Amino acid sequence: GSDVPATKKPCMEQTQELSYADRAKLPNVHPLASKLLKIMEEKESNLCVSADVTSGDELLQLADSLGPKVCMLKTHVDILEDYTAAVGRDLQALAEKHNFLIFEDRKFADIGNTVKHQYEGGLYRISSWSHIVNAHAVPGPGVLKGLGAVGKPLGHGCLLIAQMSSQGSLATGEYTKAVLNMAEQHSDFVIGFICGSKIAKRPEFIHMTPGVQLQAGGDALGQQYTTPEDVIQIKGSDVIIVGRGVLEAPDRLKAAELYRQSGWDAYRKRMGHTGK
Amino acid sequence: GSDVPATKKPCMEQTQELSYADRAKLPNVHPLASKLLKIMEEKESNLCVSADVTSGDELLQLADSLGPKVCMLKTHVDILEDYTAAVGRDLQALAEKHNFLIFEDRKFADIGNTVKHQYEGGLYRISSWSHIVNAHAVPGPGVLKGLGAVGKPLGHGCLLIAQMSSQGSLATGEYTKAVLNMAEQHSDFVIGFICGSKIAKRPEFIHMTPGVQLQAGGDALGQQYTTPEDVIQIKGSDVIIVGRGVLEAPDRLKAAELYRQSGWDAYRKRMGHTGK
Repeated sequence: GSDVPATKKPCMEQTQELSYADRAKLPNVHPLASKLLKIMEEKESNLCVSADVTSGDELLQLADSLGPKVCMLKTHVDILEDYTAAVGRDLQALAEKHNFLIFEDRKFADIGNTVKHQYEGGLYRISSWSHIVNAHAVPGPGVLKGLGAVGKPLGHGCLLIAQMSSQGSLATGEYTKAVLNMAEQHSDFVIGFICGSKIAKRPEFIHMTPGVQLQAGGDALGQQYTTPEDVIQIKGSDVIIVGRGVLEAPDRLKAAELYRQSGWDAYRKRMGHTGK
Repeated sequence: GSDVPATKKPCMEQTQELSYADRAKLPNVHPLASKLLKIMEEKESNLCVSADVTSGDELLQLADSLGPKVCMLKTHVDILEDYTAAVGRDLQALAEKHNFLIFEDRKFADIGNTVKHQYEGGLYRISSWSHIVNAHAVPGPGVLKGLGAVGKPLGHGCLLIAQMSSQGSLATGEYTKAVLNMAEQHSDFVIGFICGSKIAKRPEFIHMTPGVQLQAGGDALGQQYTTPEDVIQIKGSDVIIVGRGVLEAPDRLKAAELYRQSGWDAYRKRMGHTGK
């Protein structure tokens, strides 16, 4: 009809997929998300290794040996038996050396006033060495206000947990929608999601998926695995998070390279490149 | 009609409220819940103080001075700047001395394999000194399987977070119902709930409510406060959790006694006792 505005543009959102490099240059992208996307393009890696080890030395050794293969290293600082402030500092130096980001998988899930202290203080002083943390949305937006009060002035970013890889998770349906909404309202701090598949249309958000192995399956405590190809090519996520697939391999470096290549091939296929 | 079974008994559940002491003796009560209920009756206290301080010495000093007033002390071990294993040991000794339980408010919220390590290991070794921990249900039942693998052999118990006191929390409606269901299926480890009001009919479950102050209100990061009378008498919860109401008082011991008395009066009114 004649009341359709003449200037209305067709929606390009879904028709043309942007590359990691293109997304890094978007005007509204968070600087840390931009940095991550550039690292991914440069290192041809959408692999985040989950360094679930219990010794500080082993964590640092892993970071140094696998550093060249990953865009990000995920830590659980609170399972280290021997954490000292030097571990945080050395980890930062290795992140500089190998050009990856550090993601402390703390899953903050308390009221704003508490998470502020947990993020900044205590023995771990997470905000002093970790570029990225994550949070559950279940406490409401206060959790982002509390974390943001610490992390925003430092240029850090936060991932909201929109879905989980574990069996019977309650992060589904309306819950996931509420997470998405909370992220959009706090995009000066939230850089993306922990999720099973692409859930946000905004290309500025990073989608990261845990529970990835080369063979699908599960563990005895409810974890469920899916493959790099499924996660990146089919589900449209951006980063694969691999823990036991690398850590329990006889040759961790070889395994990391296998996952890097596998994740990158899946990305290239998604982008329409059929060959290597 | 004639098809109504003659043996059907009237539902007594709601007509007669059981006292803390009666509930402690129920055949299916978890031993730790029973211990807590006995402590509450004996000390005439349904007060849990949230010891949100950042120094180990101050935490121990609080535990020693307020110990006689509380049934439980809630900690955030990961905001202490100077935690050592001695803090955990000394806290345990004070819990013995003053007959209260220790509740580390860790809000575990990861997959089973991870929370197992977080509960047992790291610098804090939470399972070695804390009687009670809590968990979010969002990861699904695996979180309880992981924590239970560590906590059940030690006789520890877990509270599931069914509702939160913070603004815009997603722990409502169907989410809360799913938490209740998860608790019922793991009642050998789950002793109750963090919640705003009584949500489970089973008198074996303990209901604990945070965000309590003598005057209703809120903070700048989304916390919302309600009163002891509202929580215990009106909403039917069992334990009031008080943080800033005690910690920010000029005389903490006096404030704790005020909250203990206020919570206990509300309980007695709920039980039908009008005088003191």
